[in-house]
Amino acid sequence: MAKNILYVQTSGPDSPDRLYPPFVLASTARAMGVEATIYFMGKGILAVRKGEPAKIKQGDFPALKEAMDRAASEGVRMLVCAQSARLWGVSAEAGEFEEPVEVVGAATLNDLALEADAVLTF
Amino acid sequence: MAKNILYVQTSGPDSPDRLYPPFVLASTARAMGVEATIYFMGKGILAVRKGEPAKIKQGDFPALKEAMDRAASEGVRMLVCAQSARLWGVSAEAGEFEEPVEVVGAATLNDLALEADAVLTF
Amino acid sequence: MAKNILYVQTSGPDSPDRLYPPFVLASTARAMGVEATIYFMGKGILAVRKGEPAKIKQGDFPALKEAMDRAASEGVRMLVCAQSARLWGVSAEAGEFEEPVEVVGAATLNDLALEADAVLTF
Repeated sequence: MAKNILYVQTSGPDSPDRLYPPFVLASTARAMGVEATIYFMGKGILAVRKGEPAKIKQGDFPALKEAMDRAASEGVRMLVCAQSARLWGVSAEAGEFEEPVEVVGAATLNDLALEADAVLTF
Repeated sequence: MAKNILYVQTSGPDSPDRLYPPFVLASTARAMGVEATIYFMGKGILAVRKGEPAKIKQGDFPALKEAMDRAASEGVRMLVCAQSARLWGVSAEAGEFEEPVEVVGAATLNDLALEADAVLTF
Repeated sequence: MAKNILYVQTSGPDSPDRLYPPFVLASTARAMGVEATIYFMGKGILAVRKGEPAKIKQGDFPALKEAMDRAASEGVRMLVCAQSARLWGVSAEAGEFEEPVEVVGAATLNDLALEADAVLTF
């Protein structure tokens, strides 16, 4: 079975430099034949609200949207924690977020972490 | 043997939104039959000083104390790093912290991380 | 085969309290016969620029340089992410960093995380 890496994004739009690495690393993982999931929780969910990734930039880098779209096209799974969404006043519906984000319950993170071959937190 | 998850809390009272997830996730882990330990280090130790969790609130959520008490009643183990306590000017004695926190040496974290089936950092 | 722990440092000189733990824990790991690697990425790379660790202090603790040198002398491997260096306007050459830091590609982190017995992020 393919190895899989879980990236947990707890940082939000106020620290754009922390938003790129999970997308870049997950894209690289896919190129290596490794399954990759990014789980957005806490302030991290704000970074993937509809329209937000296009606004986020860091230095000379292209907008975050580009890194996100590339990751999505390479099969990276992206999940948002429903409780975090509510905590930050965002409706916990898939339509609130950029594609291909899915909304899942908070307990999902425990399962993902136990199933992953490696977990990296940002 | 039961699986076990280690939650490492490095964030403190200045970011209350980062303090709830380990308690909530650890409670959920227990409900799934998974062992759960929360290790407080760095500024994280300030969040579990005696009397502090009752003062910490986030949005409409109940005080952090409630999440901590529920986790404790479900058998979540809570450890504080002695060196971090000293670094932040807090006496490294169990009495300085909310129950059921135990104070342990810094090297404990290496052992806990190696024994855990998953590690999540906040 | 010896166990190995990967420490990922994403915090920089603006949060000195987060810079000591990986060096201290990695030194302790080595004393336990455990392989230890510290991977500096994001703002973390700024903390190991040549001359920087000698300037970083926290409370009564000796300068970060001391903790770094001890870790190095005990065989802790230290790697810097080339892309992070560029993002922060630092030349991605080993000479830019304190010894014994090596500069590696961003994808290295995926491999290190998959090979590690435990990953701790700071």
